[in-house]
Amino acid sequence: MPQLSMNARVRKSPFFDATVRHGVTHFSVYNHMYIATSFGDPEAEYRRLIEGVSLWDVGCERQVELRGPDAEKLAQYLCPRDLGRCQVGQGLYAPVCDHQGRLLNDPILLKLSADRFWLSIADSDLLLWARAIAAERRWDVEVFEPDASPLAIQGPHAVSVVAALFGDWVKRMGYFHFQATELDGIPLLLARSGWSKQGGFELYLLDETRGLELWEKVWRAGEPWNIGAGTPNATERIESGLLSYGTDTDMNSNPFELGLARFVELDIEPDFIGKQALKEIALSGPQRALTGLLLDADKPMPCIEHKCRVYSDDRDIGYIAVNTYSPRLGKNIGIALLQRALVDTQAPVIAALPDGNYRCEQCALPFCR
Amino acid sequence: MPQLSMNARVRKSPFFDATVRHGVTHFSVYNHMYIATSFGDPEAEYRRLIEGVSLWDVGCERQVELRGPDAEKLAQYLCPRDLGRCQVGQGLYAPVCDHQGRLLNDPILLKLSADRFWLSIADSDLLLWARAIAAERRWDVEVFEPDASPLAIQGPHAVSVVAALFGDWVKRMGYFHFQATELDGIPLLLARSGWSKQGGFELYLLDETRGLELWEKVWRAGEPWNIGAGTPNATERIESGLLSYGTDTDMNSNPFELGLARFVELDIEPDFIGKQALKEIALSGPQRALTGLLLDADKPMPCIEHKCRVYSDDRDIGYIAVNTYSPRLGKNIGIALLQRALVDTQAPVIAALPDGNYRCEQCALPFCR
Repeated sequence: MPQLSMNARVRKSPFFDATVRHGVTHFSVYNHMYIATSFGDPEAEYRRLIEGVSLWDVGCERQVELRGPDAEKLAQYLCPRDLGRCQVGQGLYAPVCDHQGRLLNDPILLKLSADRFWLSIADSDLLLWARAIAAERRWDVEVFEPDASPLAIQGPHAVSVVAALFGDWVKRMGYFHFQATELDGIPLLLARSGWSKQGGFELYLLDETRGLELWEKVWRAGEPWNIGAGTPNATERIESGLLSYGTDTDMNSNPFELGLARFVELDIEPDFIGKQALKEIALSGPQRALTGLLLDADKPMPCIEHKCRVYSDDRDIGYIAVNTYSPRLGKNIGIALLQRALVDTQAPVIAALPDGNYRCEQCALPFCR
Repeated sequence: MPQLSMNARVRKSPFFDATVRHGVTHFSVYNHMYIATSFGDPEAEYRRLIEGVSLWDVGCERQVELRGPDAEKLAQYLCPRDLGRCQVGQGLYAPVCDHQGRLLNDPILLKLSADRFWLSIADSDLLLWARAIAAERRWDVEVFEPDASPLAIQGPHAVSVVAALFGDWVKRMGYFHFQATELDGIPLLLARSGWSKQGGFELYLLDETRGLELWEKVWRAGEPWNIGAGTPNATERIESGLLSYGTDTDMNSNPFELGLARFVELDIEPDFIGKQALKEIALSGPQRALTGLLLDADKPMPCIEHKCRVYSDDRDIGYIAVNTYSPRLGKNIGIALLQRALVDTQAPVIAALPDGNYRCEQCALPFCR
């Protein structure tokens, strides 16, 4: 496997040195920052997430802040959700689309106050999009990146660790709800969220100089539950059918083909970007659909490094974006974006992977609940 | 050094497999694609660029195409250059700014026809910016990424290699001029350009399925000049004072502090984004300035991995973004963005690097011509 060269064009998160100390072995790059992707023991990291508690540096999950008198107007125009129902302290998953309904990012929108919102973004420069819209509409709102770097605590014991740090009140927090707080003077936003289906919290560190301090405090609080270092986990997210923007999607993806229809509120009063185009897609039905694949292979297969074509009767019908061996299913599984007609039939397909063609059964997402 | 994990979120260029075959050892990520950064012999790669000819996979230098009746209007509104003087077949370096004059990217603008332009971009999603502007203005122009992947041939012998491939007419091409052509049926755009000051060409491959074929043809044509695999070269670019967007810059950089004043044409008739804000910065003078530093160290120093603070009399006056040992100068050099008042005095400063504080003399950029 190739090595990663490091320079100042790609930033380090405030928790970077802690991940190095804990033996990080692999990185990728996400939002122009390093993201730890492995600590060298994939099986233990997976088990810890499924059965215990895992600590992830997700500082690369950057925030785009909208602040000013027109912040809510801008947030509403960007997001296909009814923000009239969104309270301060609440987050919403929002597939942000362009005027033609193409997905540009799938952030969590956080309402910090009436005139202050964050978009907690996936891997694309949504700041440029939001800033262009705001400026061209001459709305009175600043669009910038605040000093806010999430640290995720994920897994069934995450709630115990976070309760040990902050008190039992955290157990009553609703999903995607958040609250400003602090830990021994370290300013934080504590949210019940995270990119897994195993439950957990994200601590948005609000002072980038205090990342190592925060990491250590969480680590010590987590020791009774054998907390360990981990990363956003490809195997768990595939099993759980969580979308990975940029991995599962391409430049022409829309929310409907990605199974995100319930996050596109076409019947709300306020206008939002892409509303008309999305209505048309909803009416005619998307041309493609995301589907699970069960690969016909008798042992754990290597993970593909790039999208691979999928065929039905020698016809190219789409791509498989990821595969993994699922410990919970005991099978090789993957996620593919295929012609909807083929997904509707649930007929078997052929995935053309680097080491050969594999017959695949289709399977509804998610694989595991 | 950590390893790079690979998955479908980050794309491979059409030349990727060729770089692997030639022994690439390091990558970074640029525009959501892998970029080769070393073939394991930095000294040979540097010498080859300075004295010979080097072949670089720069497929990650993506294009943002503007196409349609309003393409020129959009290009002009995005770029602070007089496009009225830009002919078909000509490129222009264009520091693209937001409405407040902050640099968002520094692409080469290529005029392919009256209604078709490319922005050949540095590492930020300028597509989102351009698409938002076009849509909000309701201009009749499509904004998308075309199938176009540059392969760079750089160094003093590049012109001989390219002449051997295409004919002697290429020797008369002006800098930043380009022409559609082909090589044994492989569709290309041939441009006299590249991210070095050693001269060279970029072949924009227009069919992503034919990258390995193109690489091999260039390789064979270059053998008489001992062509070798290389990458955009940090040492040469620092010596030459070429800007690296995202490395040398931060989120609030403007073209004036970066020494790009000659690429911002404030007195032209057409309006462009940021014109008023840039006029104000030009009038008051920028608060910071890019400067060269000569580090007081008696042997080649390791390269820093992130921006480091720079001090004068214990006052924080900015950052150093990169350093390198310059073979041509026999010195450790770097590029810093500092308070302009300090740069004006050319007083020595202190760079706080990971292994200690270094006294630095200032030095006008570029270090080498």
